[in-house]
This record gives sequence, structure tokens and C-alpha cells, in this order.
Amino acid sequence: MAKVESPTKAKMILATLDLLRASGLSGAGINNIVEAGGAPKGSVYHFFPAGKHALVTAALREAEQAVGGAFRTIFSQAASASHKVRMLFHATAERLEANGFLKGCPVAAVTLDLDESSADLRTVCEAVFRTWREIIAAGLDDVPDNRHDVAQLILAALEGALVLARAQASRAPLEETGALLATMLSRGSLRD
Amino acid sequence: MAKVESPTKAKMILATLDLLRASGLSGAGINNIVEAGGAPKGSVYHFFPAGKHALVTAALREAEQAVGGAFRTIFSQAASASHKVRMLFHATAERLEANGFLKGCPVAAVTLDLDESSADLRTVCEAVFRTWREIIAAGLDDVPDNRHDVAQLILAALEGALVLARAQASRAPLEETGALLATMLSRGSLRD
Repeated sequence: MAKVESPTKAKMILATLDLLRASGLSGAGINNIVEAGGAPKGSVYHFFPAGKHALVTAALREAEQAVGGAFRTIFSQAASASHKVRMLFHATAERLEANGFLKGCPVAAVTLDLDESSADLRTVCEAVFRTWREIIAAGLDDVPDNRHDVAQLILAALEGALVLARAQASRAPLEETGALLATMLSRGSLRD
Repeated sequence: MAKVESPTKAKMILATLDLLRASGLSGAGINNIVEAGGAPKGSVYHFFPAGKHALVTAALREAEQAVGGAFRTIFSQAASASHKVRMLFHATAERLEANGFLKGCPVAAVTLDLDESSADLRTVCEAVFRTWREIIAAGLDDVPDNRHDVAQLILAALEGALVLARAQASRAPLEETGALLATMLSRGSLRD
């Protein structure tokens, strides 16, 4: 983790991220965070005097970097967009299966918990999705025109297939959706 | 609503559904349901002696019928698959904007809150997604081969674009993703 000076603080952020991946904002109550992170309750407010939203923001920014790094590893390869998309969905399916289909995307989970009192977190979620979309778009070398829209479709399909895969407790929706998108890309059929 | 005999029970189910759309399982606590539904607390246990999961199941089944009915209206038209997909994403964008980008798909919201204690709800979410995918697949008249996979891609892209649209508080991810999918379908590029 970059820019986090204290091991206690870093552990707290990672524990929060894990809870967000499992059940969004609702799972990341201060008591759950304290229990999962093994730190005294006061330390949450010591490191994050602004409270839970500041800690959740730090966890989402950590996900932005970690997941974004994984996306960049795939999308900066010298390979076709089709191959990269297949790898993206396959790697996501592997990861979901490894956690027993219980932990998905923390940013989607938080987004679907947002209400009027969490407008600050909405802008964080928006920014993380934008970062990921831009990483994907930058790797679509063989898509000439509408990279922004194609990257958005890839990210939307990935997030949606993650939901379907978690509901089915199966890799199939991710693998099948990735394969279909890859086929389309290999035909150049996503061009304007 | 079909098969619901008591107005109090029906109101309770609709109030629960509304809370699920806003923030998933976490938002649909018994106290919130009672407050939103205007019924005495004891009536929740009167109508749903098995407790909260039974009420949530009834709400998800209501969404299955209501949203499924809207999908069927679009996908049973005498129109191209391309036209239907554009209508689906446009209608979803309209609905999301009408509620201030605060209420999305209740089934996705519940799916992203699931843990080991809610395996019963996972199978309900799986069944609702299957119903919706089949309604879409049945309307893909001009897709000859792989209707199941294409319908799954459409549903995944819709659910994912709903998440992106909510995070951005904008219709754009839904309208743009729908337009790109529609363009691909009109070219027959989703065929095997």
C-alpha cells in the first residue's frame, strides 16, 4: 500500500476494504472494522477523526490502486483487445471463485448502498470507476474510434457479470460474457 | 400485485422493495420497513413469521414480476433486437433519473450484500435473474444461435451500467452502453 505510514492504519484500511467487498457499506460498521482489524475502537477515530466515511474513502482509494494495477497489467500487454478482455473476465472469475463467491467489487457494493447522506462517497465511487475505465480504454489499441464507449461497455459488463456470478455462485456468467465480448472485439464489430 | 390477499401485507412488501432498491439488505431492517410501511411492528411477524428473509423474498419476487413485466412489454414487440435493447436501456435510464439516481435494481443490491447466513436469498436472486434473462432471450428473434449468451450479456451490461449511472448520477452510462450494444446487434455481430 502506498502512502500509508502506520501499520495499524494500513491494516484497518484493508479490513474495511474486505468488509466492503463482502457486503458494502452495511457490512463496514465501526464495530465490524474494529473486530476484523484487531485494533482498539479508539484507533479508528484516531486515524480517521472524520469518521467512517473517511475510512471507507481510504479503502475505496486502495481498491482503485490495487484493482487498477491488475487492470493495467492486463491492458498494457502487447496483445489484442480481444485477448485482454478474455483475460480480464477470466482473472475476475478466478478471484471470485477463490473467495467462495462471497466477495465482489467494493465500489459497486458501496454504490448500491448510497443514500442522500453519502453524497461524498458517491463522488469517490465515480472517480474510481473513471480511473478503471481510462486504464481499459488506454489498452484498446486495435479499437480505433470509440474507445471510451467500448471501455465503458467492458466495465459495465464486468460489474454486471460479477453480480450474476455471485448470485449463481458460478464462474459461468463471467467466463461466458468475457468470451462473447472478446469474439465481438476480434471481429472489430465494436467500431463506430 | 398478484396473490397478495391483505392490503397491509402488500404495502409492507412494496415498502421493503423500495428500501432494497435504495440500499439493499442493510436498508431493509425491520424498523425501517415498519416506518416506511406504516404498519405496527408485530404485523411483520404476523405476516412473515419466518422473519426478515421471508419478507425480502416476497419483495424480490414482486420485483421479478414487475420488472419482468416491463421487460416482456419491450421484448415481445415486433421489432428488431437492436431496437428493443435501446428501449430497455433508455427506459431504465428514465426510471433511474426519475428517482434522483437513488434507487436501482433490488436484486443486484441484495446480491452484493449476501453472506454465509443468506444462502436462501442467494437462490432467490439467482432465480429472478434467470427469469429476466429468459424473457430477454425469448425476444431476440433476429439472433439465430447464441440467444442465451447474448441475453446474459445484455442483462450484465444493464446491471453494470446501472451501477455506473448511479455512481455518476447520470443517465449517460446507460444510454451510451445501450446504444453501443444496439449498434452491435443491428450488425448481427453478436452471432456465433
